[in-house]
Amino acid sequence: RHRFTMASLRGMQQPDLSKKLFKLIKSENHAIGAYETAGRERISIAQQLSEWGEATTDDAISEVSDKLGVLMAEIAEQEDLYAQSLEDYRGVLKQIRNTESSVQPSRDHKQKVSDEIAKLKYKEPQSTKIVQLEQELVRAEAQSLVAEAQLTNITRQKFKEAFDIHFAATIERAEKQIILAKQARRILNLLDDTPIVPGDQHAGFEAHEAARQILNDAEDGLRNWQPNLEPIHSSAGNLGAGAMPGSGLN
Amino acid sequence: RHRFTMASLRGMQQPDLSKKLFKLIKSENHAIGAYETAGRERISIAQQLSEWGEATTDDAISEVSDKLGVLMAEIAEQEDLYAQSLEDYRGVLKQIRNTESSVQPSRDHKQKVSDEIAKLKYKEPQSTKIVQLEQELVRAEAQSLVAEAQLTNITRQKFKEAFDIHFAATIERAEKQIILAKQARRILNLLDDTPIVPGDQHAGFEAHEAARQILNDAEDGLRNWQPNLEPIHSSAGNLGAGAMPGSGLN
Repeated sequence: RHRFTMASLRGMQQPDLSKKLFKLIKSENHAIGAYETAGRERISIAQQLSEWGEATTDDAISEVSDKLGVLMAEIAEQEDLYAQSLEDYRGVLKQIRNTESSVQPSRDHKQKVSDEIAKLKYKEPQSTKIVQLEQELVRAEAQSLVAEAQLTNITRQKFKEAFDIHFAATIERAEKQIILAKQARRILNLLDDTPIVPGDQHAGFEAHEAARQILNDAEDGLRNWQPNLEPIHSSAGNLGAGAMPGSGLN
Repeated sequence: RHRFTMASLRGMQQPDLSKKLFKLIKSENHAIGAYETAGRERISIAQQLSEWGEATTDDAISEVSDKLGVLMAEIAEQEDLYAQSLEDYRGVLKQIRNTESSVQPSRDHKQKVSDEIAKLKYKEPQSTKIVQLEQELVRAEAQSLVAEAQLTNITRQKFKEAFDIHFAATIERAEKQIILAKQARRILNLLDDTPIVPGDQHAGFEAHEAARQILNDAEDGLRNWQPNLEPIHSSAGNLGAGAMPGSGLN
């Protein structure tokens, strides 16, 4: 059933850099929407479970389903918090995408000046405009070097920042849902499913206190939860507003 | 930010028992669909991330994004396996719902005979049909006692079975995604985000072997994963085809 393979995911390449990230950010929006839907449905299901349990008029089912509903609603809430963190991660990806978009004109400008020089050298080799364009090209190249350095600096820094958020959120959702699901299994074990014969009745449910305690344990577990993660190291600490190394003033 | 409260989820009641579970099962279908969508989007995002990384022509971003993509695709795969388990859980809930539906006619029949007797006693107290109906009521009551015992036996047994599957799946998804996300954070730390000045370049990416090893560790982690759960105890073991205690023959 398991299909974990180590193959590369490489496929075809497209021309425009920021277009790829634009599309990825859009796909993330769909994924986030799906988690929000799942969370919303699950909160509704928790409610429905509790109401169904009450309607059975079976004391034990009623109590167990109500308490499970509380834990399930909290598991659903974790899906929603996860979706919120993914939204933060998505915001950081947008910063990379915006830098990509802003660098494109300086690439294009350099290319354009370069092309003009080549054309002019072929058609009017004596034109004084060539000297002027060559000066412009030097300026365009300098500008482009800055832009490319900014791009790589921003990309690497924000990439780490984005996926730090992403995977921390994956781990947080998982750890909290484990706490809740384990307590839910304890609740489930309070239900006696010994079959009865016609006319007989189950003994009344007497584990109210135990059920209450399990919810308290779940609440304590969540309250005491702390992230326990390999920290993501960054050396981009002094990256300035100009996305260059140093004081932040350049 | 945390809103875990211990309140009951009880609200209004509706009349028809199997209608509630019918609706809950339908809501679960939507929730499962949302997880499938999330998994599908995430697999596509993993692919897109790898392709974006390659297109940056930055060695380090390219390698790191490709390896992260592999782990993210596997995290996505866990969403899909989770959805499959929820489908199993949903199937067990349907068995409860079907029993509820099948018990309804015997409740209705008993009620109808009872009502007829009351009406006849009022309108034609001397009617010989009353005796006949009273005999029928005894039979209807016997049938109803069997049906109600079947309902409670099936409900309790299948309830435990269903939520055992549900919460085991929650824990499995969570534990496997933690394994993968923790390795993803190690991959992320292979990316050096020290900023460069214009015209400078990052040193070539040299952690290919380390990245490869992290993927191997992730694969080993998944392969060695074992469920570690409080077992759900059942006393319904000898519940027969007639949903009565005993040999399974009654």
